[in-house]
Amino acid sequence: MGAPKHRNFSVNGERLWASLMDMAEIGATAGGGSNRQALTDLDRDGRELLRRWCEEAGLSVAIDDVGNMFARRDGSDPSLPPVAIGSHLDTQPTGGRFDGVLGVLGALEVVRALDDAGIVTRHPIEIVNWTNEEGTRFAPAMLASGVFAGVYESSWALGLRDGQGKTFGQELARIGFAGSPSARDRTFHAYLELHIEQGPILEAEGIDIGVVTHGQGFNWLDVVLVGRESHSGSTPMARRKDAFRGAAEIALLVNEIAETNPPGVGTIGELSIDPNSRNVVPGRVKFSVDLRHPNGDVLSRMSSKLIAHAEVIAARHGLHFMHELVGRFEPVTFDEGCVAVVRRAAEDCGLTSRTIISGAGHDACYVARVAPTAMIFCPCKDGLSHNEAEDIDPIWARNGANVLLNAVVTLAGMA
Amino acid sequence: MGAPKHRNFSVNGERLWASLMDMAEIGATAGGGSNRQALTDLDRDGRELLRRWCEEAGLSVAIDDVGNMFARRDGSDPSLPPVAIGSHLDTQPTGGRFDGVLGVLGALEVVRALDDAGIVTRHPIEIVNWTNEEGTRFAPAMLASGVFAGVYESSWALGLRDGQGKTFGQELARIGFAGSPSARDRTFHAYLELHIEQGPILEAEGIDIGVVTHGQGFNWLDVVLVGRESHSGSTPMARRKDAFRGAAEIALLVNEIAETNPPGVGTIGELSIDPNSRNVVPGRVKFSVDLRHPNGDVLSRMSSKLIAHAEVIAARHGLHFMHELVGRFEPVTFDEGCVAVVRRAAEDCGLTSRTIISGAGHDACYVARVAPTAMIFCPCKDGLSHNEAEDIDPIWARNGANVLLNAVVTLAGMA
Repeated sequence: MGAPKHRNFSVNGERLWASLMDMAEIGATAGGGSNRQALTDLDRDGRELLRRWCEEAGLSVAIDDVGNMFARRDGSDPSLPPVAIGSHLDTQPTGGRFDGVLGVLGALEVVRALDDAGIVTRHPIEIVNWTNEEGTRFAPAMLASGVFAGVYESSWALGLRDGQGKTFGQELARIGFAGSPSARDRTFHAYLELHIEQGPILEAEGIDIGVVTHGQGFNWLDVVLVGRESHSGSTPMARRKDAFRGAAEIALLVNEIAETNPPGVGTIGELSIDPNSRNVVPGRVKFSVDLRHPNGDVLSRMSSKLIAHAEVIAARHGLHFMHELVGRFEPVTFDEGCVAVVRRAAEDCGLTSRTIISGAGHDACYVARVAPTAMIFCPCKDGLSHNEAEDIDPIWARNGANVLLNAVVTLAGMA
Repeated sequence: MGAPKHRNFSVNGERLWASLMDMAEIGATAGGGSNRQALTDLDRDGRELLRRWCEEAGLSVAIDDVGNMFARRDGSDPSLPPVAIGSHLDTQPTGGRFDGVLGVLGALEVVRALDDAGIVTRHPIEIVNWTNEEGTRFAPAMLASGVFAGVYESSWALGLRDGQGKTFGQELARIGFAGSPSARDRTFHAYLELHIEQGPILEAEGIDIGVVTHGQGFNWLDVVLVGRESHSGSTPMARRKDAFRGAAEIALLVNEIAETNPPGVGTIGELSIDPNSRNVVPGRVKFSVDLRHPNGDVLSRMSSKLIAHAEVIAARHGLHFMHELVGRFEPVTFDEGCVAVVRRAAEDCGLTSRTIISGAGHDACYVARVAPTAMIFCPCKDGLSHNEAEDIDPIWARNGANVLLNAVVTLAGMA
């Protein structure tokens, strides 16, 4: 290529791994994963460990009114906006040890490595832990980065309720992480997020680093089918209004729509039957539909087709069909300049890389609305994520953090 | 027909209806139904009301070790075994006011009407309330009549656990209805059960009484599909092991098998997804399958076909398929003599009747193993049952109880 060789900085891979394992002990599950759902006691414990580590590294920690944490390492020019790096510490109920966590602790390792090397940057550097990225306890996902990016009002977020009726605001105050709205009043020079791929491509192709150029868009629907509950023994097939029969046909439709629109995906992940009794024909079924595609127009067509065909299925079985769009995320194009810095950093580290599209939503997808943003993917085993068996090789973690470190130095500048 | 006209005895329809409405106040639901699940506080309240009414009618109440209640009206010959009449007071979580209750309170009305008319029978008469017919809190259904008939050991029944881990025996003792094993040591001269049809046939044909000749058999399966949970955004369709996709295809198979084997029926009434999260491809799904047919051989073939084809579906999606037969009930043929007595009683009351097959399981189906048994159906509106909207006309209730009364007099004999 003839590209000029840059000086190459390195993180301490063993220290990064040790921090990841320490954090994984908080909410460790029997299956080897992590359960630190947003605003639980275990989320609090994880946050407090991060705060302690940041304070030990001499950083000052600010917390905003939706619990986002910003840990600042000063630069040589206090007038310059920070380069922010981070992700989230909250997990799925049966989540893995790396989803989100690698981005936060990789950012911490970047700061520690800069300290080790005695490097002062011109721009400050801020480690960020975004609240409630997973969205399983309080929907929607990426809630607090969404507030930061102006997508949601903080007052709306604080009023959201979990399945037990507890509000986001009450739970945030309960765990001691309700901060000040003014802490959100900050501008990033750039934002970088290191994350596991959560898909199978990098591992299958033996590539070290994914340079993420786009984020896939998604539509989240809630569907309710209402039929008529009746006795399973004495209601002839022709006289049934079986809500689950309709749901099953719609499930096949979701899969067919995804498969005929590659690389789109479609999932029914959540479903409940009412009254959920062995000998009662289901009278009511509620379920989620998650449709994704990197092209916004195709995504809209997938969603329209689903609704139109589901209505036909419902009518055929005498069911009342209701649907609500509970989440819509437009596909994201990351900042060309930041993407180029990441690609160059991988090259400087001697790592192989490829362009990749993010299949999942990430905090970076919202932050991209208010700051130049890019993401760095490292492989994960079998492409597994949102799963206790989620796993990565320590070398993959180190490679990702090295790319993050070198990209940060480029963006923040050396004093 | 030239058949001799019999004397025709009558119940008090208004009193029967008032008792039904009084009982329906215990566990009344907002939707107009009843929720008196087995061995709850409300089931206890219903049992205590029945006991009070029986004692007010001068009956002696015995309770066995699985909570079955036997309220005895003496006959003229103490050496003769009783004619037993009854059903169950427990309901589905969103059950109706008549399923089971009509059979118990219809039996009570028979005794009250005999008292009014000053009739002494040769055989004693016993009103029976069988415990846990519905089986929704403690599976299987018809549990305590099954113990009575020798199908289940009482010790096994007492050890069954509900969804919260509480045992049948603990809960029975808690509500004060744990009696003596010796109370089960009784033989019936005959057993008659009055019940709503729980199906649409009698109402649609405008017929007063169903003379039940057979009980449909059923197979209850528990199915578990194990795939691999993974991220809904970044797991390509071709790399998924989506347990719910398999369940949806098996649901269509259940419906197809039922529809191609008339008058068979098939239902998935209960289903749970693990981890049940919007953005996680389901790793595990558990569901019930309820297959029914009046012919035991056909029922077995339906079940075999389901298992064979479900295995193929599971394999196609990379799922592990497990199944367990958690209930099997052979089709029942009721006692010819008792059936003839019921048919004649309907005729004597001037009511229209037809032969009918029971689509649902009933306590009578187990009692038929140990005593000459028959059932009497009356219509129910829209064939609806296991539903808060379950309803009957007071005249239908009175007609059914009149047939029960006249059949009882024939079987018990007049002193």
